[in-house]
Amino acid sequence: MSSMPPITFNAIGYLKSCFVEKNGSPRQPSVCRQSRAQLAIESNFTNPHHSLMSLQQFSHVWLIFLFHMNENTHVRAKIKPPRLDGEKIGVFASRSPHRPNPIGLTLAKLDKVDGNIIHLSGIDIVDGTPILDIKPYIPDYDNPPADQDIQLASWLTLPPVKPLTVQFTSQAEDDLQQFFPSENNTSHSKYQLQLLKDSDEARSVIHDVVASDPRSTYRRNKCTDEVYHFTVDKLNISCKFENEVAIITQIVPVDDIQHLRDKFMKNAGSHQ
Amino acid sequence: MSSMPPITFNAIGYLKSCFVEKNGSPRQPSVCRQSRAQLAIESNFTNPHHSLMSLQQFSHVWLIFLFHMNENTHVRAKIKPPRLDGEKIGVFASRSPHRPNPIGLTLAKLDKVDGNIIHLSGIDIVDGTPILDIKPYIPDYDNPPADQDIQLASWLTLPPVKPLTVQFTSQAEDDLQQFFPSENNTSHSKYQLQLLKDSDEARSVIHDVVASDPRSTYRRNKCTDEVYHFTVDKLNISCKFENEVAIITQIVPVDDIQHLRDKFMKNAGSHQ
Repeated sequence: MSSMPPITFNAIGYLKSCFVEKNGSPRQPSVCRQSRAQLAIESNFTNPHHSLMSLQQFSHVWLIFLFHMNENTHVRAKIKPPRLDGEKIGVFASRSPHRPNPIGLTLAKLDKVDGNIIHLSGIDIVDGTPILDIKPYIPDYDNPPADQDIQLASWLTLPPVKPLTVQFTSQAEDDLQQFFPSENNTSHSKYQLQLLKDSDEARSVIHDVVASDPRSTYRRNKCTDEVYHFTVDKLNISCKFENEVAIITQIVPVDDIQHLRDKFMKNAGSHQ
Repeated sequence: MSSMPPITFNAIGYLKSCFVEKNGSPRQPSVCRQSRAQLAIESNFTNPHHSLMSLQQFSHVWLIFLFHMNENTHVRAKIKPPRLDGEKIGVFASRSPHRPNPIGLTLAKLDKVDGNIIHLSGIDIVDGTPILDIKPYIPDYDNPPADQDIQLASWLTLPPVKPLTVQFTSQAEDDLQQFFPSENNTSHSKYQLQLLKDSDEARSVIHDVVASDPRSTYRRNKCTDEVYHFTVDKLNISCKFENEVAIITQIVPVDDIQHLRDKFMKNAGSHQ
């Protein structure tokens, strides 16, 4: 409405996340406990690290962020959540990113505060997300009073899209073992993980992402045969789906994919 | 930072709350379970009420809002929470309204959806607050995984500012009985409540607000003798403090106060 003055915010920083692109990023928090992220406070404080003083006394924090990857500019009053199989609900009855103010809310585990950087895990948001605010999680504020009944929509309490069984081919298992810990900072190998600690953690993230079925409804129903690719940290993962089983077939460094893309673009260019 | 593009939002509506002014508004949610509010969705949807479709399946909702009453324009990296008695912590380790992006987060009970209006209780925010977003409360998303320990700062787990004992004088009790239910819409009397249901509910809100000691640290220590006034719904409350006891002395309709103020202003004007 024209009578409402617009409200302007600036990001306090941009999340560095193991979920590199929208494809393969979890749709809900707590899906993926091993997922990791870092946030450097860039607000124009003289001493940005002062803004995080004492935050390490809390085990969990809220991140309030901008859904910056929405492509639609037109916001609808009703939306179709993936789990409702075509049924519509009001946008405010959902956690859809496509809302009048594209503000996201997610709870993350606080692992460590290091200067002006906070280290997080159990996050579900994509790399480069603008963060608007961080607040400590305080159970007394952030839960209904103990004697109040909590009710929620049946489409959330009934089993959601059925979790998939995840299998890794021996090729994928071998691929995974080549990646080495992010904490070993002596090298800049394309096999060095950036945020995930080691190949076990990477395996766990891949498992959780795939088990919750990251495909769109369209893709799930119409493109069953196509190989699904997604990226986690420095890993590019190839996966195929057979009924209720997801099979991880190959895991290669993102740099190789980039190299192949660059090569393709170069060749495409030479044909012009 | 100049490299960050500003992010612009518009209010989806402005909260109509029983807390009429900052004075006497609770500092934390869940302080005051009987407090009531209404929000009319004003976003420029063709059918605003469609945006609330199915929301009534949830018992609790998050309100993401703008702290619009901040007077300070300079945000500090460290702040002094009232309960820490002068000690400083980082702004992101607090729920202070004075933060780089003045965004508030509060959980409210959803009482009813009626067209484009949602009726709420247990809220802690002041009348006229611009609301940015509403999201359903979903315990699985909004709590840490069950096997993770929750830690929080000791200044929150240790007893906060000691709750006060609240007494009503017989005058105040009599005053209160004059106010009649908000649902009786046959009259526009100055004694008709707007959001609170009846005088029992009003009594409960007054009790909770005063028990949690709404005074500033300065006022608590330096102005013990002064009568404290605050407004809830259509009630203007006078209260005095004697050590750990708060005594409600008088409850008059806000309109009377307004009338006195207008008279004062008129007289002040005639002396110019």
